[in-house]
Parts: sequence; C-alpha cells; structure tokens
Amino acid sequence: MLVVMNVGATAEQIEAVARAIRELGFTPHAMPGAQRTAVCVTGNKGPVHRDALAQLPGVSEVISVSKPYKLVSREAQPESTVVAVNGHAIGGTAIQFIAGPCSVESEDRMFGIAERLVAMNIPFLRAGAYKPRTSPYAFQGLEKEGLRILDRVRERFGLRIVTEVLSEETVDEVTAAADVLQIGARNMQNFALLKKVARCTKPVLLKRGASATVEEWLMAAEYLLSGGNRQVILCERGIRTFSDHTRNTLDVSAIAVVKSLSHLPVVADPSHAAGRREFVAPLGKAAVAAGADGLIIEAHVDPNSAWSDGAQTLGMDELERLVEDVRRYDAAFRRT
Amino acid sequence: MLVVMNVGATAEQIEAVARAIRELGFTPHAMPGAQRTAVCVTGNKGPVHRDALAQLPGVSEVISVSKPYKLVSREAQPESTVVAVNGHAIGGTAIQFIAGPCSVESEDRMFGIAERLVAMNIPFLRAGAYKPRTSPYAFQGLEKEGLRILDRVRERFGLRIVTEVLSEETVDEVTAAADVLQIGARNMQNFALLKKVARCTKPVLLKRGASATVEEWLMAAEYLLSGGNRQVILCERGIRTFSDHTRNTLDVSAIAVVKSLSHLPVVADPSHAAGRREFVAPLGKAAVAAGADGLIIEAHVDPNSAWSDGAQTLGMDELERLVEDVRRYDAAFRRT
Amino acid sequence: MLVVMNVGATAEQIEAVARAIRELGFTPHAMPGAQRTAVCVTGNKGPVHRDALAQLPGVSEVISVSKPYKLVSREAQPESTVVAVNGHAIGGTAIQFIAGPCSVESEDRMFGIAERLVAMNIPFLRAGAYKPRTSPYAFQGLEKEGLRILDRVRERFGLRIVTEVLSEETVDEVTAAADVLQIGARNMQNFALLKKVARCTKPVLLKRGASATVEEWLMAAEYLLSGGNRQVILCERGIRTFSDHTRNTLDVSAIAVVKSLSHLPVVADPSHAAGRREFVAPLGKAAVAAGADGLIIEAHVDPNSAWSDGAQTLGMDELERLVEDVRRYDAAFRRT
Amino acid sequence: MLVVMNVGATAEQIEAVARAIRELGFTPHAMPGAQRTAVCVTGNKGPVHRDALAQLPGVSEVISVSKPYKLVSREAQPESTVVAVNGHAIGGTAIQFIAGPCSVESEDRMFGIAERLVAMNIPFLRAGAYKPRTSPYAFQGLEKEGLRILDRVRERFGLRIVTEVLSEETVDEVTAAADVLQIGARNMQNFALLKKVARCTKPVLLKRGASATVEEWLMAAEYLLSGGNRQVILCERGIRTFSDHTRNTLDVSAIAVVKSLSHLPVVADPSHAAGRREFVAPLGKAAVAAGADGLIIEAHVDPNSAWSDGAQTLGMDELERLVEDVRRYDAAFRRT
Repeated sequence: MLVVMNVGATAEQIEAVARAIRELGFTPHAMPGAQRTAVCVTGNKGPVHRDALAQLPGVSEVISVSKPYKLVSREAQPESTVVAVNGHAIGGTAIQFIAGPCSVESEDRMFGIAERLVAMNIPFLRAGAYKPRTSPYAFQGLEKEGLRILDRVRERFGLRIVTEVLSEETVDEVTAAADVLQIGARNMQNFALLKKVARCTKPVLLKRGASATVEEWLMAAEYLLSGGNRQVILCERGIRTFSDHTRNTLDVSAIAVVKSLSHLPVVADPSHAAGRREFVAPLGKAAVAAGADGLIIEAHVDPNSAWSDGAQTLGMDELERLVEDVRRYDAAFRRT
Repeated sequence: MLVVMNVGATAEQIEAVARAIRELGFTPHAMPGAQRTAVCVTGNKGPVHRDALAQLPGVSEVISVSKPYKLVSREAQPESTVVAVNGHAIGGTAIQFIAGPCSVESEDRMFGIAERLVAMNIPFLRAGAYKPRTSPYAFQGLEKEGLRILDRVRERFGLRIVTEVLSEETVDEVTAAADVLQIGARNMQNFALLKKVARCTKPVLLKRGASATVEEWLMAAEYLLSGGNRQVILCERGIRTFSDHTRNTLDVSAIAVVKSLSHLPVVADPSHAAGRREFVAPLGKAAVAAGADGLIIEAHVDPNSAWSDGAQTLGMDELERLVEDVRRYDAAFRRT
Repeated sequence: MLVVMNVGATAEQIEAVARAIRELGFTPHAMPGAQRTAVCVTGNKGPVHRDALAQLPGVSEVISVSKPYKLVSREAQPESTVVAVNGHAIGGTAIQFIAGPCSVESEDRMFGIAERLVAMNIPFLRAGAYKPRTSPYAFQGLEKEGLRILDRVRERFGLRIVTEVLSEETVDEVTAAADVLQIGARNMQNFALLKKVARCTKPVLLKRGASATVEEWLMAAEYLLSGGNRQVILCERGIRTFSDHTRNTLDVSAIAVVKSLSHLPVVADPSHAAGRREFVAPLGKAAVAAGADGLIIEAHVDPNSAWSDGAQTLGMDELERLVEDVRRYDAAFRRT
Repeated sequence: MLVVMNVGATAEQIEAVARAIRELGFTPHAMPGAQRTAVCVTGNKGPVHRDALAQLPGVSEVISVSKPYKLVSREAQPESTVVAVNGHAIGGTAIQFIAGPCSVESEDRMFGIAERLVAMNIPFLRAGAYKPRTSPYAFQGLEKEGLRILDRVRERFGLRIVTEVLSEETVDEVTAAADVLQIGARNMQNFALLKKVARCTKPVLLKRGASATVEEWLMAAEYLLSGGNRQVILCERGIRTFSDHTRNTLDVSAIAVVKSLSHLPVVADPSHAAGRREFVAPLGKAAVAAGADGLIIEAHVDPNSAWSDGAQTLGMDELERLVEDVRRYDAAFRRT
C-alpha cells in the first residue's frame, strides 16, 4: 500500500499520515521523491482500510503495491535511486567502475593497483579482507590486517573502498573500514546478516545469489530498506545453469528487468561469470548495453600471480581498454 | 593425506604421528575406525613429504586423499558414521524419521503433535523457532518463546528436538534448546555460521543448498568436521531446476552418490521439494529406495491451518501411512 | 471438452454425439473406459456450446478439460492405460523390464544377451539400429543390418523388440522390425516425426526431453494420441540441471506427477542418467518406489566392451540382482 | 587433424593431399582461407599417421584439432566465415538484421511488413510457413500457401527470405522458397533433418537448443559442414534455466565463446527469450555488445494482432529505433 501525497503536501501532513498508519498497527516509510512524497505501508497481512488514509489532508491517492517487495519497487519510488559515495555516484547519468583484486594483498601491491585506478579515474577499489571460501582449508583473507591496509589505501589515494562482510560478528569492524559493504552471492539470503547490515550507515552492494530469482533478490534488498538502509546497489554476477562454457551464466536480462521493477541501481560483475579472461570484456559491455549502471571488475597489476577464487582477473591494461570502450559507449548512448 | 595406522597401533604411536604432522606445519585429525585408526592431514597446500610419516612406528601406509574434502570422505573413514542422539541413531541399520510442523506453534498444538509422534515411535521432532523467510514482512518464528515451548515438549514427551539456527548470535541459545541443530539450505555456505556451529557439542543436520553441487555440500560439511564437530547428518531437500511441476527437484541421485563418497548419514526432506501434498509420500519412498538413512517430514495435527513456508504439510494419518510403508520396505530390504 | 456418456449408452448414441461434434467443426475421440465411454472434443479454439451436446440421448454430463493436453489426461480417461505387447503388459499390475545393449551389435552378441534376458523372464529387448549421435563422425548404428539382426532375435527368442526411430524416412522399416518404437529425448519435440509415428500401429515409448517440462512432454504424447496412436509409454530419463555428479538428474518426481495427471504408463531409464554404473540400481529402485510402471536398462554380456553413448551399461549379473530386488519390492507393495 | 598447405600450394598439391587422406580411409575437406588452404581430415577414430601426410609436396604442417568439432573450429579455419545471400552478408563488418512476423500471414500483411523492412534497409525477412507448435491443436502455419506468399514477397520487394524447415519431407519445397533455411531450437539435434539440410545449396540458420551446451551446438553445425553445407549461421535464442523473469535466459556469453571457438557467424534472437516486449531492445543491444554479427527480430505492422508463439513481437517503429541504436553502436565500435 502506498499513500501518495500532493505535490505541495507539508511535513505535518506527511507526519499525520505516518501516525495514522502506525495507529492502524502498520509501519510507515516516507519515500521523498523529486516531485512529491509517498508513504509506503508495510507490515499489513491483509488489505488495509484505505478510506481512512485517503481522506487525510494532503493525500493525493492511495494505491496498492502489486508486488511482495514494496520499498524497492518503482511503484513506491518512480525516480531511480542514486547512491552517492563521497561525491561519486552509482546509478547516476554515467557508468561507474569498481575495480581491484579479489583479496587484499600486501600494502605494496595494493598501492600499485590503487595508483593505476586513480590514473584511470576509477574512484572505487574493491578487495576482500574476509573471503568466503568453499574449502575450510583455503586462504580466508588477511582479515583485520586486510582492513588496515584498505584504510591506508583510502587515506593515501582517496579511493572509496568496497569490501565484503561475511559475518554478523564483523559487521562493525568492516563497516568502519568500508565505504560500501559488499554482501556476497552466498549470503544473499543470510537474513541475520541482512538485518544487521540494514542498521549500518554505509551503502551496501548486494550480489544476486547464484540461483536466486529476481523476486528473491529484490526481497533480500527489501530486508535492507525495511531495516533502514536505503543506499543499496544490486549486483548481477551470473547464475548457475547447465551451461558449462562459462563459470556462471551472466543473466543480462535480469539487469533490464530489475531496472524496470526497482528504482535501485544495478551493476554487473562479469569477472566471476566469465570463466576465461578474454570473456570479461564482452560480458561487461553486454551488461552495460542491457542497462547496467556500472561494472565491478577484478583487476590486478600482476593478474597471473593474483590470489583469486574462481573469478578472472584482468591486467591493468586490459581493464583500461574495457573502461575506455565502455565510456565511449556511454558518451554516445547515455540517457540524460 | 591419510596416515593409516596398523590394527594394533598404540595410542602413543598415534600421538607420535599427530605430533610429527604438527611439526610439519599441518593439522592432524585422528579418525578412529572399527578396525584401525587413520590420521587425516589437513592444512597442506602442496604435497606432504610422506616418507617421514611412513617410517614412524605403527604406520601401515600413507595414502593421498583425491578429493578436496578430506574428513567427510570414505577414504578417510570407510565405516559409515552413526549419529546417536540420546539412544536413537541416524545412519544405523534402520530408517529414522524426523517429523513435525514447519514452525513452533502454541504449546497445545505442539503437545498434540508430539503425542502422535510418540505413538508412531518417531523419536525426533522438528519445528523452527527461528524461521528464514524470503520476505522481511513475513512471520519470522516465535523465537525465544518457541525455544521454551520446544524445551517443554522434550521434557514431557522425551522427544529429540531438531530446530534451525539462523544466526551466529543465537547459536548458543538454540544449542541449549536443541538436540540437533539444523542449518538450512540458504545458509549452507554461510561460513561464519558453519564455523561457529562446528564448535558446538550438538549434532548438526546440514541441508544441501538449492543450487549446491555435491562437492560444495561436502565441503560445507568439511567446515563442520574440521572445526571439531563430527556429528553431521546431511539432508537432500531438492534442487532448483527449470522443472516446474514440483517446487524443487528432489535429487535422489545425490543420496546414492553422497553415500558412496562420504561416511556421513544422509536423510531426505521430501516436504520442501514436493509442491503438492500427494507427492510427499512417493518422493519419500524414492529417497529411501535410493539409500537415504531417514526422512524429515513436515506434519501437523491440522495441516490445513499449519503455518508453512512453501513446504507441504502432511496430516498425522498421512504421515503414519508413509512411515508404515517405509518401515515395511526397510524390514524387507535393509542391509544388515 | 469431454462428453461423458451414461453407463449403458449405446454405440448409436456415441456415434450421434461424435457426429454432432463433427458438425460443430471439431474432432471427436471416443475414449472407451471400463465403466463408460467419454468422447473427447479437440480442435476447438474457444469454448464449445455445451448445451447442444448435453441434451443428446445417452449423455451423462459435459465437462471441461482444464489442461492443454486432452486425450492423455486422467480427466479424459480415469483408468490407467495398459499397453499390451504380444501378451506382456506395460502399465499393468506388475513392474515391467526392458533391457539390452545401447546399439545392436553382432548376431552372436545379441543372441548371448537375449538368452540371458529370457532366463530372467524379461520379455522386452532394447537395442538401437539407428543411433542419434552428437558427433557426425561417431558410429551411427548398424542401420538396416541392425534391424535384420533384431528380427532374428525376435524369431529365435520370442522377445519383444524396442528400438529407436530417428527419421521420418525410416519410420516404415523400423515399424516393420519393432514391437515398440522408441522416440528419443532429442526428438521429443520433432513434431514431424511424432505425426508420422502417430499413424503407426505399433506402441511408442516416448522419452522425455532433457529440458522438457512435464506439460511439454504430455503435449508431445498428445501429438501421438490425437494422431491416432493410443499405445504410448512415457519414459523419464533424466533432466539437464547444474548438478554435475550424475550425467543427468533423474527426476523421479516427474513419475509421480505424470501418473496423477495422465493415464499413460511411465517407465524410467536410470542408465542414461546415472553417470556411473553403481548408481543405476539405486536410481532404478527409486523410480519404482516413486511409482514407475517399469524400467528400461542398458545391459550387456560384456559391459566393458559394449558400444555405448554416455549411458552406463550393466553386466547381466548386475541386471539380475536389480531385477530381483525390484520384483521383491513389487510383490510386497504393488497395488492390486 | 588438419593438413595446412603452404601459401603457394597448387591445386594439384591440394588434391594429392586429399587423395592420400582418402587412401588412408578418411575424408578430406579442403578449407580455402584468405592466405592458404587447409585440408581437414575427418572420419578417423584413432590417431592418423601424420608423417605420410607431412611429407607430401606443398604441405606446411600437420596439426591436431583438439576439439570434437573440426570443420566449424577456428583451428580449421582462422578467418571468420561470411555468409553472403544475394549480396548481403551475415558475419561481415556490419551488423545484419533479419526481421518479420512469427508466421507467414496474409499477402496484404506480409507486403505491409516487407515495405517497412525495405524502408529500414533490412534485407532479410523472417516468417514461418511451417511452425513447430507445442500443441497438436495449435495453428501449424499456412504451409504451402505460406511458401507461395513468401515467394511473392521476394519477387516484389527483393527481400531475402529466412524460413523454418521442420520435416525431412518438406526440405525440398522449403529450400525452393527460402534464401536461408532456419532450423529451430527443438530440431537442433534432429540429426536426420540436419543430414538432409546439409545436402542443400541454401545457407542455414541453426538455432541453439534450449538446453544445448556450446559443444553440442557446434557439433550440430558440424553435421551441416561435414555433410557439405558450409554456409551456416548460428543463432543464440536463450536457454532454459530456473530463472523465471524472462521466457528464456539469453546466454550472451555463448556468443563471445562461439566467436572464439568457431569461424561461423553468430546472430541472436532476443524476441524469443525476452518474455516481455520492452526487454527485446536491451537484450538485442547486449547481444551485439557481446559480439553478435546480427539480430533476428520478430516484428509486425500490428504486433497486438500478430500470430505469435511465445516470442515478443515488436511494432515497426520499435524495430526501427532498435535498428538505429544498434547501427550507431556498430558505426562507433565495429572492428574493421
């Protein structure tokens, strides 16, 4: 249920609507838009008596939300969300890039990578301090030491740090070190983690689970928004299918579909899907052509010696070519 | 790597082998078998110098483990693991049953259900106090109050309680209330949760993720064993495929395959896969015919009013018919 | 649309209903049942004016068929179809077996195999004279010579021959040599072949396509029934999923589902799904436990030297053990 | 096995190599390239004695082909194949378009559609006279009358006709009416049809089966090339996955992968995958960005009244916008 306010509705009128919703036993969420504010109602099991709300001052109309996800839907907020991170936007008019190694490595190597990113005008660095690994015997990341290295990268290069949070117990420390918290594909339905991250003040990059439907993915995002965190970036990273010529099947259609169903920005991760390094670039371009707001790319100054976990790591020159291609495409086609 | 001891090897010899392994920088895991003990070596990245170990007193042979999972493999332990829970076995010579509602409901209803289970000689009751739900607006379980009700069910009826743990932060309280901790399909690769549950003293029922390969599933179990918990029961509950006539495709072949690759017991959950109530029984029988050690079945005294989350809930009479059919099958065919 | 006749309706009344249906521009199909006859109406795009039919003499009721498949549905024919082939039934009260090599081999080898089948009381021999092969360079079967060998096997051993037809152009010659025509998974939606085989007088074993939904499979069978051939046996042989521990995922749930939706008999082919020889038996038993009317098994006197195409070939002793197990199960549980 | 000739090898030398191959019991296929000719050897089960061939005059080197597909591989022919159809190329330097309705409709409507295609400089018209339909009761196309209408469209508008062939028995008549024969996804492994079409003189557009691996798809194309037809265009049209937000999951990665493995041109069909009309354009653009040589698009002057079979039909104005977008992209990025 969505209570759409008049264009000139006052703050008092909006608060009165929220109060009326609370009195009905439900939860109001004010969604301020460019033109007008809507108040989304959640927590109702059955239908809400809409008449009581429709007659309040300043209310334009009361409409049903037809989907199980509410706050993430375009019905609730027609304008696209722009997630701004220290002056750099994801979901705005330009394609954004996030790049870096799979795992945080030594300070030296991280500085070398960061330098190249700065030179390419890529404002976001990705690297995992905590790594989810299929095997308990595999390297699990530099952990706290990794977070410290990321701090120094931010200080020295001014890059925004995107790093994964794996555990409820490390949410606080990762939040302190990160500019954007990443939730990995295997944790997309780790609801305890989602609830905890929903209370953070940092934006969240939420990867699609390898076998998640679009609806499940949007419902996972709904956990974040309904818990109080609206700075959510969705990330398509490939789904699990019978198809064996790539590691995962990058589902570019999901990008177009999510952009139509939700106001949240969507980026694509072609590195994890590709399976071979030469396919990262065509998959990245395809994702952008399908409507992605950005790309997250694994890249390293020495890709052959990089620690990696199934993803394909580009060299910095390969990354630069891809970025240039996409920016040319973007300049030619970007809707303004 | 597996160091197989002689039949008559002494405790001192075994400890000397373990010490030698630790001195090489690796981790020893003693796997006592019916005939002889093997010491499994984990933590090695590359090959281990086997000669140093092979020459120790009491060592019969040193063999490589060809799979990425070590402790769960039949190579490491040829005898099947039997998980005994207060005198009732899962993985022994008889098919075992675990039954009960999706979620813990009121004490009255739980007592009604428990009474019927006792009458059928089903020693395990399942019910969730914490429920993983796709929607943040859906009922999330009775939580602490649910755990208290389960406690009273155990006290009064002597049933063993199987209940899900969702969050690192509630592992302790759920462990206190449960006889078997369930890890759900969506948390199969929640490695933070696996690591924490590995340190519990209660057995764990580990569901296969909806798109997990058998190898990934066994690796998740390896997290539990390598973390110190060897009382692991695997549970096949259906995989996600294109096929739309059931909710999930129960992969009975995985049961046969896992029984050959691993010594751990495997049960099947036909209720979540079935999609329609009438298909629970044939799927349950098929799983047993494929080699399952038991079934976990959603059942309720009033299935039509039961809270449920996609699974099909049998009535108690339907459950009884299925149990009788399977027990007759079991009596006729069970390997002794 | 289904026009159900009274129990004592006369042949004239049934013919009058058929004539009325034809006059409406549709096609009548009389479905004689144990108790009464129904006349199924196909060819209607929109709703049929049911009143004109309901008032005809001998008509009990006129009911809608809710599925896109009509003639194969249990709505149209509540009694299960039994396909009888020279005195041996598929779909009757006992589990049936079809066994033999992948491809027809030399007469000597075929005679050796046939002898063993006869000794086990297996009345159906399977073997391909024309083989569908992924590669154009692979052996495509003995073709006409293979059909001649099958003829001699039938003559000498009295076995019923199940063999695949691949091409519209060989339907006549294969029909002459076969007792049951097999349509392979890759031809399940080869509609030209279905239409031609629908006009044959021999029963058809129709394999499910590796990515066919149950509805598509039943629609393929509907091509056969609506074209005039009602002697159809369905065969589940595994579907294509992400799961890589078997060659295909045997979908035993499809067996239970199809038995409830359709009156046609269903057999299972565990040999093509298994991926390893040791899994053929547990998968076969699981399929029977789920409700299959029979099994089709690849078996050979010398399985290690058998020509094969991805399926797992049992030795004759392995086959015998599986057959005995299933027959014991059948004796204990078969509904009478 | 591939016998690569010297740059200046004479026709006699090539023929001598072919003769030597035939004498070894194998089949030679001359593959003339821009620089030099290679002779591909097929029909060998085991290794070929390469020395005898390597020493023949004009032979540069003899190399193994590492894939099961030979003639379609880039190893056999490094240069991309360009399929030219009456002066219009598929696989050349520019993106090509094929558009039109699902089925052939009345002459009037077809003329209306053709007129618009001509105005957009789209030289290929697609429309089915024979339609593969899931249901035997569904419209199966105008058949012979449809072919006649296509003839008149070609005569009057000079368009090249792409139309599907379903049955071995109609290969001759469809070949007479078509400029490009289409083989549909459900017939990708109809080997009898492939063998017959391989002997035609018209180019073939071979759709990928909904659950075909890239290797199976290339092997199906190998049937065509090894049977004598080298004018093959591959078409990615979406695969069957669990994902339910589109009708099929357009696998754009397959385009990039096939372009690297094979010299054959690849087009994409976003209309069948999309599931909703608004997603045809982003999927089409994504396919081109991934490397597709062209698009095949369902389009109609009156899309809402068009006969269709699951695909999404664009209106002519929508088609025009997509074509313009893609041509702008192509002008900016196309490799020369």
